[in-house]
Amino acid sequence: MGDGILAGNSRVGLWLIGARGSVAATVVAGAAAIRAGMMPATGCVSELPDFRDTGLPNFNDLVFGGHDIVTVPLPKRVEQLAQDGVIPATLLGPIDGALVAAETEIRPGIGALPVGQTLSEAVAPIVADLVSFRRRHRLARVVVVNVASTERPSQISAAHDSLAGLEEAMSDTCPAIPTSSLYAYAAFRAGCSYVDFTPSAGARLPALDEFARVQGLPYAGSDGKTGETLVKSALAPMFAHRALRVRSWTGVNLLGGGDGATLAEPAAAQSKTMSKGRALEAVLGTAVEGAVHIDYVPELGEWKTAWDHISFEGFFGVRMTIQFTWQGCDSALAAPLVLDLARLMARAHETGRVGPQGQLAFFFKDPVGTDEHRLVMQYEALRQWAMLLRSQR
Amino acid sequence: MGDGILAGNSRVGLWLIGARGSVAATVVAGAAAIRAGMMPATGCVSELPDFRDTGLPNFNDLVFGGHDIVTVPLPKRVEQLAQDGVIPATLLGPIDGALVAAETEIRPGIGALPVGQTLSEAVAPIVADLVSFRRRHRLARVVVVNVASTERPSQISAAHDSLAGLEEAMSDTCPAIPTSSLYAYAAFRAGCSYVDFTPSAGARLPALDEFARVQGLPYAGSDGKTGETLVKSALAPMFAHRALRVRSWTGVNLLGGGDGATLAEPAAAQSKTMSKGRALEAVLGTAVEGAVHIDYVPELGEWKTAWDHISFEGFFGVRMTIQFTWQGCDSALAAPLVLDLARLMARAHETGRVGPQGQLAFFFKDPVGTDEHRLVMQYEALRQWAMLLRSQR
Amino acid sequence: MGDGILAGNSRVGLWLIGARGSVAATVVAGAAAIRAGMMPATGCVSELPDFRDTGLPNFNDLVFGGHDIVTVPLPKRVEQLAQDGVIPATLLGPIDGALVAAETEIRPGIGALPVGQTLSEAVAPIVADLVSFRRRHRLARVVVVNVASTERPSQISAAHDSLAGLEEAMSDTCPAIPTSSLYAYAAFRAGCSYVDFTPSAGARLPALDEFARVQGLPYAGSDGKTGETLVKSALAPMFAHRALRVRSWTGVNLLGGGDGATLAEPAAAQSKTMSKGRALEAVLGTAVEGAVHIDYVPELGEWKTAWDHISFEGFFGVRMTIQFTWQGCDSALAAPLVLDLARLMARAHETGRVGPQGQLAFFFKDPVGTDEHRLVMQYEALRQWAMLLRSQR
Amino acid sequence: MGDGILAGNSRVGLWLIGARGSVAATVVAGAAAIRAGMMPATGCVSELPDFRDTGLPNFNDLVFGGHDIVTVPLPKRVEQLAQDGVIPATLLGPIDGALVAAETEIRPGIGALPVGQTLSEAVAPIVADLVSFRRRHRLARVVVVNVASTERPSQISAAHDSLAGLEEAMSDTCPAIPTSSLYAYAAFRAGCSYVDFTPSAGARLPALDEFARVQGLPYAGSDGKTGETLVKSALAPMFAHRALRVRSWTGVNLLGGGDGATLAEPAAAQSKTMSKGRALEAVLGTAVEGAVHIDYVPELGEWKTAWDHISFEGFFGVRMTIQFTWQGCDSALAAPLVLDLARLMARAHETGRVGPQGQLAFFFKDPVGTDEHRLVMQYEALRQWAMLLRSQR
Repeated sequence: MGDGILAGNSRVGLWLIGARGSVAATVVAGAAAIRAGMMPATGCVSELPDFRDTGLPNFNDLVFGGHDIVTVPLPKRVEQLAQDGVIPATLLGPIDGALVAAETEIRPGIGALPVGQTLSEAVAPIVADLVSFRRRHRLARVVVVNVASTERPSQISAAHDSLAGLEEAMSDTCPAIPTSSLYAYAAFRAGCSYVDFTPSAGARLPALDEFARVQGLPYAGSDGKTGETLVKSALAPMFAHRALRVRSWTGVNLLGGGDGATLAEPAAAQSKTMSKGRALEAVLGTAVEGAVHIDYVPELGEWKTAWDHISFEGFFGVRMTIQFTWQGCDSALAAPLVLDLARLMARAHETGRVGPQGQLAFFFKDPVGTDEHRLVMQYEALRQWAMLLRSQR
Repeated sequence: MGDGILAGNSRVGLWLIGARGSVAATVVAGAAAIRAGMMPATGCVSELPDFRDTGLPNFNDLVFGGHDIVTVPLPKRVEQLAQDGVIPATLLGPIDGALVAAETEIRPGIGALPVGQTLSEAVAPIVADLVSFRRRHRLARVVVVNVASTERPSQISAAHDSLAGLEEAMSDTCPAIPTSSLYAYAAFRAGCSYVDFTPSAGARLPALDEFARVQGLPYAGSDGKTGETLVKSALAPMFAHRALRVRSWTGVNLLGGGDGATLAEPAAAQSKTMSKGRALEAVLGTAVEGAVHIDYVPELGEWKTAWDHISFEGFFGVRMTIQFTWQGCDSALAAPLVLDLARLMARAHETGRVGPQGQLAFFFKDPVGTDEHRLVMQYEALRQWAMLLRSQR
Repeated sequence: MGDGILAGNSRVGLWLIGARGSVAATVVAGAAAIRAGMMPATGCVSELPDFRDTGLPNFNDLVFGGHDIVTVPLPKRVEQLAQDGVIPATLLGPIDGALVAAETEIRPGIGALPVGQTLSEAVAPIVADLVSFRRRHRLARVVVVNVASTERPSQISAAHDSLAGLEEAMSDTCPAIPTSSLYAYAAFRAGCSYVDFTPSAGARLPALDEFARVQGLPYAGSDGKTGETLVKSALAPMFAHRALRVRSWTGVNLLGGGDGATLAEPAAAQSKTMSKGRALEAVLGTAVEGAVHIDYVPELGEWKTAWDHISFEGFFGVRMTIQFTWQGCDSALAAPLVLDLARLMARAHETGRVGPQGQLAFFFKDPVGTDEHRLVMQYEALRQWAMLLRSQR
Repeated sequence: MGDGILAGNSRVGLWLIGARGSVAATVVAGAAAIRAGMMPATGCVSELPDFRDTGLPNFNDLVFGGHDIVTVPLPKRVEQLAQDGVIPATLLGPIDGALVAAETEIRPGIGALPVGQTLSEAVAPIVADLVSFRRRHRLARVVVVNVASTERPSQISAAHDSLAGLEEAMSDTCPAIPTSSLYAYAAFRAGCSYVDFTPSAGARLPALDEFARVQGLPYAGSDGKTGETLVKSALAPMFAHRALRVRSWTGVNLLGGGDGATLAEPAAAQSKTMSKGRALEAVLGTAVEGAVHIDYVPELGEWKTAWDHISFEGFFGVRMTIQFTWQGCDSALAAPLVLDLARLMARAHETGRVGPQGQLAFFFKDPVGTDEHRLVMQYEALRQWAMLLRSQR
């Protein structure tokens, strides 16, 4: 075997659904800036000492592409992020080449189905795009990560329950399958692993779990944990382990930007608040009073603020409270995790793992493959796997 | 063996240094209310399902006594706590008998040394009190818990470094040994385990560690984790595990009550802020900018409020913040933990454990016997031990 | 003239619509405790030095009565408030007589209209109750204060626009007139002044304003300013006067208790959020982004917590924020203001003032008779009136 | 008279003590950006409609100069502010000319007195600088504004009490006079008005008040109200006017930048905390429990965060709290106020006002010439004066 092939084998594709959105733009820009030695990989979990010598692909080995239905080019999106204070303006020049390269690998995504088109016909070009991307760049494997806008909760359908039912529905012209799941289907069809960074259905349908196993592919998700829920999963165990009774937990999320606009739509917000609620109940072992609000406040731009108010009870029924306010930049919080997931998923795929990857629960609000919602225990599970990877090299 | 002996063997003494303070009063009142079935054991970790069938003494098996230099009787102190809203006034009648019983077991503590008295002479009656308490109540064992006011940081002295040096100093009239350590010495001399619920030196002197091992006794500490530091130990791992760089962490603690008054004294406050600071550095792996303030605000009474401001940095150097405000009742937070520690320590003693009990780190700001400061991992260590206890029965 | 008549002339009735609710119970209990010298009049604006010698009725001169459709007696309601920590349990004995006396003056309120009954027929007993109350107690005058649950926003109707139209509608059996406005009508019919402490329509219909003027009676409202909006009216002028541009203002109100339960109903909440929004726009001179939420969190009981997040812009477009968290006890905040309003309104009536009393805007979220929403300027207007009252004596 | 002289007469000098600091740099840069039409005058009170047609000098009529002992040139300082996110980088080019022009008018300030030099000798060049600045630019008048670092509280000295005593001390070589007061002396000597934007002594010595009156000059101060105290002066009247008893008020200020570094020095911090404390006591009418902390947190740069916790008591002694967190940019908050003060002071001088200018209290933590600390009443006083100015034109 020649060197070219060896080198090619170590290269990994990161294919982004929603490739021209804020998160994707920050992912591509950030990887370029890290590769150029112009910024540290702050926020990248996979760069912590615990993950050294675990065989993860390097930042240099990542190749970017993706689907989107939006047409504003990636470099333009990055410019806006610079204006919003997310990306330093001084970096725009040095990373421009990388942005243009990624932009040339962005293909039209699945939009509204034309009349008479079957789902199979809609999915076929998506599969072809993935296969072509892998071949042209001689990639060892491709990780597909969904960072598109949150979908509404999907209707239950027989087509979701088994691979056979799903394959049958693919000949239909009726869109009973959520778009995110069509992407997951295409990914598995093309031999790619799949990560849901949103609360959309994606690979979570039983039919797609079956398909992933048939294809021998791993998947992970869902809904990247980047703010309020991240803090919740750190804080909620404190009450459970200290035998303090949580009386109510109210959360308010003020979001600007694209995510805020999408979540201003009540149905989409429902997907998100359902996803956000799960960690709390799982950790506390019971439902508690209090709502989760998501407010769209356009002027906040890429920034988000969450306020949580927790009322709890201790000895002698004494009532106490804790409040926290989180002020973060959504895309800057999400992007390094997407890079982490691409690297970790590529390695999971390489080492032959199949189905839901519970050891990646650390990254998600509503993780597949595990019931563990405590942040530190999720990290420990990830670290254990890293130790296993290291020992296997 | 007769029933009396069996019954006697299962009874455990909880001897409180500072037995007439808020925390001690809440401990005795709370145990009485739980025994009377008048309140749930909210806040008692040892009552969680994870600790079932681990052979811990029941609340019914606890007998209370202690030392204090204050003379306001325990029932009077409990009355004040009722006025401050900590203990429901309706409970005062039903628990009065238990309070009076405990009050009759409170002995004069170590005050200022009379001229010419040696440390040995000061300690002798303390030892005698402990032995008499155990004999008269036919207790299987006694756990001594220090809930007295925080001492200033102690001067380093050769007498602290070895048991031989300590024994020599005991013949002196010069108080080179902190009072809390004299109590620990007395506890070990009397065959009792010892728990430091304050940041005072207590059993942490190398000489006393040596003494505990010689006597075959366990000890634990120090500084019960009941508020700001509890939250810190839940929250700080989030930054470390997510590779987010903490830029500064500032904390402000507003305290009323006796604890606040003590800590208004700068030297005592230093003991506390040193103790509070340790978890953060240990978890983050580095010192960070920012101070910890302790303010005495008398009007707050038994209540305390902490505000923490954390500034951190993520991808692209973006600056983000989280703030939290904790509003708690100090004695109500501390008291159930003291009961937990008495039960767990009695069992540690019973099962032959010796020296620092790292598996109890979960309860402390500055734990002995371990470097683990992450709250959830501390809980897991405790749970592992509980599983071991269960399997050994 | 005999002493009896003189004494009688100085006595004032405070007639509460919603007389068995939390606010009313706190009003009656508080006045009794103040009269008994058992608590200071903290929170009573009319007891500030600025209101000395202005001829207000004394607390001793107030006689209580009211309407309610709830049947739980007032002393029982006060007992619950004591359990919730609003009223000290030690006061229950001393004020019991006053509670029982007020309870005997509570009459059935206007419930659902029986089939075939006209509004006139529904209102007649209400008028009779007021007249009887005034006569039996030989009161100089009666102030009717609405502290009942918030109504939904009312439909616009021709009957609202003129007294003639209203009188015509009174012969109807169709309830086009909000219940709160029926009470206002009854008050004016009986020669009583009227205060709206809720956002309900009450006396705000043009027809009722006309009626008040015809009868020569003063009225005031609406919606007592006791928490978030109070703070807003103190804080918003800061931005306006400092030429800082408010970008968004988001508010979240967590309420337990009866008020929370009522406002959990979206239509009623709308009345409240409309009322809450007015001050902000009036002061800032423009609408701003951001929502106001009202959440019902039953476990909070009589307590309420509000969090407001304000994003604003300064020199060079720099973005800054202020957040505040308000934790208050609803009935304890409202009750002294109701006493203030009764005293001030009685004096307004006595001095011949007619129609909307703009000088009382200080007490209201959505004041009648003025456009001034800045808290301090509202206070100054009240103080000016107090100076006038003093000079007229 | 020719047009040139008329035009010259309307031009006003703004002479900054501390001319190369963050605030001064933001002042000069901001005025240039406003003049260039590149940013709105957000944060400039004097641009509100209430100040139209009051004869204030235009931004175009301001000429900048100043003293400093620092040598880093103004354009360099502005560059740093751009890096810190205060000034948009895109403005640097367009305003560069204005920065260079101001830099050429910065003269060496008063440093450590050389051995043997008298105060008169130290002050003489300062006076000469001011006179030369006015002549060369044909300015109608010059306003001197002190924005230098906060001094320690000064020792009381007989030289402070009368102009005669002060003049005598000027022949001494001993620095009994604070540097800020030497600048005020020089300003008055040169016929300039003087504004203290810091808590330093400046013109507040009785001797300097006397000098200002002798010279027929106005002065104002002290300590620009730009953050926590601004909010306090808006919020504290709420408690006073609502008869709510403030139990404690604790404030924590986290400051980066130069101001933070200066105030990390305890003596200087004392000047500031004394100045910050005055408004509260004045408004509440009584001292309250609670401290004010100033923490230097270098990483915050130009940003500051203040957290205030206020505990208060209402009806039935119920305890309630409000907390606020203010996150602002120090120089962006201060700079527009300095421009306002220059414009307003020039007009006060022009209209013949002499001595302390109480109508400018709105801008200051510790205002001269008035006891009014309520923000809105301070604004009303300013507005009244503006109305007077308008009527006099």
